Amino acid sequence: MYRTNTCGELRIDHVGHTVTLAGWVQRIRKMGGMTFIDLRDRYGITQLVIDGTSAKEINDTVASLGREYVIQAEGKVEERQSKNNKIPTGEIEIKLTKINILNKAQTPPFTIEDESDGGEELRAKYRYLDLRRNPLKKALMLRHKMAHETRVYLDSQNFMEIETPYLIKSTPEGARDFVVPSRMNPGEFYALPQSPQQYKQLLMVAGFDRYFQIVRCFRDEDLRADRQPEFTQIDCEMSFVERDDVLRTFEGLAKHLFKSVLGKDFKEPFLRMPYSEAMGSYGSDKPDIRFGMKINELTNDVKGHNFSVFDDAQYVGGIVVEGISAYTRKQIDELTEWVKRSQVGAKGLIYIRVNEDGLKSSIDKFFTQDDLKKIVGKVGAKSGDIIFIMSGVKSKTQVALGTLRIEMGNRLGLRDPKVFAPLWVCDFPLLEWDDETNRFYAMHHPFTAPKPENLDKFYSNKKEDLELVSANAYDFVLNGTEVGGGSIRIHDAAVQKRMFEVLGMTDEEAQYKFGFLMQAFKFGAPPHGGLAFGFDRFCALFGGQDTIRDYIAFPKNNTGRDMMADAPSKIDDIQMKELYLKSTAPEE
Amino acid sequence: MYRTNTCGELRIDHVGHTVTLAGWVQRIRKMGGMTFIDLRDRYGITQLVIDGTSAKEINDTVASLGREYVIQAEGKVEERQSKNNKIPTGEIEIKLTKINILNKAQTPPFTIEDESDGGEELRAKYRYLDLRRNPLKKALMLRHKMAHETRVYLDSQNFMEIETPYLIKSTPEGARDFVVPSRMNPGEFYALPQSPQQYKQLLMVAGFDRYFQIVRCFRDEDLRADRQPEFTQIDCEMSFVERDDVLRTFEGLAKHLFKSVLGKDFKEPFLRMPYSEAMGSYGSDKPDIRFGMKINELTNDVKGHNFSVFDDAQYVGGIVVEGISAYTRKQIDELTEWVKRSQVGAKGLIYIRVNEDGLKSSIDKFFTQDDLKKIVGKVGAKSGDIIFIMSGVKSKTQVALGTLRIEMGNRLGLRDPKVFAPLWVCDFPLLEWDDETNRFYAMHHPFTAPKPENLDKFYSNKKEDLELVSANAYDFVLNGTEVGGGSIRIHDAAVQKRMFEVLGMTDEEAQYKFGFLMQAFKFGAPPHGGLAFGFDRFCALFGGQDTIRDYIAFPKNNTGRDMMADAPSKIDDIQMKELYLKSTAPEE
Repeated sequence: MYRTNTCGELRIDHVGHTVTLAGWVQRIRKMGGMTFIDLRDRYGITQLVIDGTSAKEINDTVASLGREYVIQAEGKVEERQSKNNKIPTGEIEIKLTKINILNKAQTPPFTIEDESDGGEELRAKYRYLDLRRNPLKKALMLRHKMAHETRVYLDSQNFMEIETPYLIKSTPEGARDFVVPSRMNPGEFYALPQSPQQYKQLLMVAGFDRYFQIVRCFRDEDLRADRQPEFTQIDCEMSFVERDDVLRTFEGLAKHLFKSVLGKDFKEPFLRMPYSEAMGSYGSDKPDIRFGMKINELTNDVKGHNFSVFDDAQYVGGIVVEGISAYTRKQIDELTEWVKRSQVGAKGLIYIRVNEDGLKSSIDKFFTQDDLKKIVGKVGAKSGDIIFIMSGVKSKTQVALGTLRIEMGNRLGLRDPKVFAPLWVCDFPLLEWDDETNRFYAMHHPFTAPKPENLDKFYSNKKEDLELVSANAYDFVLNGTEVGGGSIRIHDAAVQKRMFEVLGMTDEEAQYKFGFLMQAFKFGAPPHGGLAFGFDRFCALFGGQDTIRDYIAFPKNNTGRDMMADAPSKIDDIQMKELYLKSTAPEE
Repeated sequence: MYRTNTCGELRIDHVGHTVTLAGWVQRIRKMGGMTFIDLRDRYGITQLVIDGTSAKEINDTVASLGREYVIQAEGKVEERQSKNNKIPTGEIEIKLTKINILNKAQTPPFTIEDESDGGEELRAKYRYLDLRRNPLKKALMLRHKMAHETRVYLDSQNFMEIETPYLIKSTPEGARDFVVPSRMNPGEFYALPQSPQQYKQLLMVAGFDRYFQIVRCFRDEDLRADRQPEFTQIDCEMSFVERDDVLRTFEGLAKHLFKSVLGKDFKEPFLRMPYSEAMGSYGSDKPDIRFGMKINELTNDVKGHNFSVFDDAQYVGGIVVEGISAYTRKQIDELTEWVKRSQVGAKGLIYIRVNEDGLKSSIDKFFTQDDLKKIVGKVGAKSGDIIFIMSGVKSKTQVALGTLRIEMGNRLGLRDPKVFAPLWVCDFPLLEWDDETNRFYAMHHPFTAPKPENLDKFYSNKKEDLELVSANAYDFVLNGTEVGGGSIRIHDAAVQKRMFEVLGMTDEEAQYKFGFLMQAFKFGAPPHGGLAFGFDRFCALFGGQDTIRDYIAFPKNNTGRDMMADAPSKIDDIQMKELYLKSTAPEE
């Protein structure tokens, strides 16, 4: 027993007790004849104190301490003279009677404080020291709690956690697999799963009824900002369900997490928004509904003013940004440049400034004050607002307006990370037409069922009809981020056959790509559906953070490298030979 | 909503209710004018019935049903005429009013019964059908419960589940790593973890205090019977602990699992047995203590009878097998052949048969009845028993006697899988001398601490002293199987340096092999220790089974192949090129 108590639990009631603590030296302060040590462990910080009355060997040991030394400290709990109400142990301190250095420590290369002085790379290299900092410690504690409460809830709903294999068959569909050469099967490779999609559907065929797994997934993609080559999913599947059964169940999970982890009570059902509305009103399939500023379509309200930008456009829309009419011309120019960047891709930005004394606009040449007033009335702007308008191809313009909306939300502080606005987005298109290859692609995956009421159109041979077929799919969106997504799967062989037909896939191709799943479906597949949550992102959002990196204990950088372990690395020739492999990488 | 109830929940109280069930057709029986259908889902089986009064379309549909069809059935709950008290729903049946075929099924290639008619290979190929069978379904339900209760207990003990990476650095130590080529880092590879050992120690350095993870591990070894290339561990580590703290905590976990999963209450502390006693009394470091039949050393009791087999032996020992004195000469000869097989490796087997009317032995030529009586007295045999004796090199002979002991336990039915006898085996040797390379190896791994009371010997330069150093290590043994193992780790830099010295490892080598962990230890490592349970095996033992394969949803066969998915497999040339790899596998 190295300790009787942790550094987070002693209170005023413990005064008089003799205790032993163990932990890291966070800080040493001398004041007059007194020395104060902040002793830290996972549970908190407790102040140790020595003064003139303390034994010489204690004084000597304390004098030798450095930051991050690991010590064991025995002493009496005393009431503090000057209390610290910022920490739970702030009313007491320990008058040292014995101290024992358990381990010395080199001075860390950066400070172990909430705001460290270390750069990102340095902290990545010494991740184990970075993890000592409060923000990261709290992030992983939150993650543990999220995972645990997820399991408690799903277990209570009769879900079974079933582990699916990590060494699976490589499939040529979708993103690139990580592969694992097999020594025992020369020339052959396993793949690491991008998700357990096929296995969870097999488990439904096997009759497990309700499956989940908090599971690692792998994607060998060029890493965009804040993507990781390995990431974690809450993966779920249910049998004998329709869409609403799935949504109800996982809305229950989300509410349980909000309540048990954040103490937030969501009593009302989550909003369910059709994809078309999400795109139309928010210019995004993952709308942030923490704030309004919805997109108003103006296509038919602005034509016929000899303004070709509007007259020739398929679509015109605008958003009302409240209370920014004091924006300078320079600010608006800067915003205009911003929307013209390739990431947004707008052609330009038209504004109408709504002031007490009238309207001011970049289209004054084409629109009279009365014309402008009509627009102002239509979008419901009021004095002090600015209306931003864009035009062009419908979908692109909506997305650009949506991107501007988010940017204005950020600039105006409308996106408080402590406010949570979850919703379901539903009724996605089933198919996406690709002009280049002149064929349809599945927007989710080829097992996603069409909505039952769209089956007529699904069997039509007209492209226009097929484009209108909605998928029986749904996304769980939180604060403008897609956190979860899933669908009701096709369990009917005829519908599946038609799906492959629509995707221009031959029977052989389907067999090659999805062989054992297609085979399994012949032996009695129940109606089923499910979804998966991106667990890293879910945790980060619960923690009020934008990036997932702090919510992963040992993340990789943008080139997929573990900076601490220095992985990946070369392996030796013997192992290459055993794996029947030769490297063709260019010599350095 | 496809159903109002599951197939496992209706009871006599539900009589009169109209319900809808969904599931698989297990069996169809016709009796007189009645047809009975056993409808199965994960939760149970419910009997559906139609008779002469049922509508024609129902009769027609029922007539078209085959085994494993997926149906939806509506009807009224009625009390059965002849009840089935073998199943919980056996008092009721559903009088069908509506039936809907949700999916047809091809006839499965083997019967979906507790005892199937399918061979192992066939069942592996159609694993999703094999999983429909009760024994496998129950195995995975038990596994889910074990995992869940493990998490409930460890969470209650302040353990945090922290996910460690699966794409890590390859290390040349120990068993062979599976490796993953990195496309973004040409010529370099990740490894899949054999265990998160280094990461969990880093988490202790990071201050997380109590870590656990139910985690997949990978080992590219030639597969012995009942080994899998990927397997699951309950992996744990704690800071500021001594051995007894660790044992107390995980004995708590084991007791919680026995109680919550099997309803078995272990009130007494588990036995703690030193390695030397385990070897001496059971000839095994994982003794099965469900039965006695301990080994008795006879070395000094049998010398001096001109019997060179004993006189020249380093060690002589024997076991008393009760109640088998009626064994024929043929049976004993067969046992003698059995122990002489290379798997046991004994040179021979000597017996003393203890009968009412005297002693009969294979060494009658050298031992008088009085001599034999002394042996009988020493080992405490009684009339009706046989004593089996072996001699030779001490450790080998003990192991051979231990193997015979287990065999006799099996033959005599002393190893009831429903009886559980857990214990801790402690005080393993720290080091193993290898004559071939003329050096010591770490019996566990080079971070395992020597027992504090053996530190003197640890710093000695004599081989004999070093051989006597015990490790601060422990195994959790259940019914003759090592289910868990771990140790207190070295946290002191000087002790670690000495360890590498004893292992003949240079600083550079140690740095190369354990670089970032050694580096981390310089920044304040707390005293820590932990252990890992083999989760697949733990589940199988709880289920009373010898093999783990039924406790893994999708296992691989002995050549590491997934027979269902047909993995591993070839990948295409484009991907090989992207990975900078060329295969040198012989063409088929």
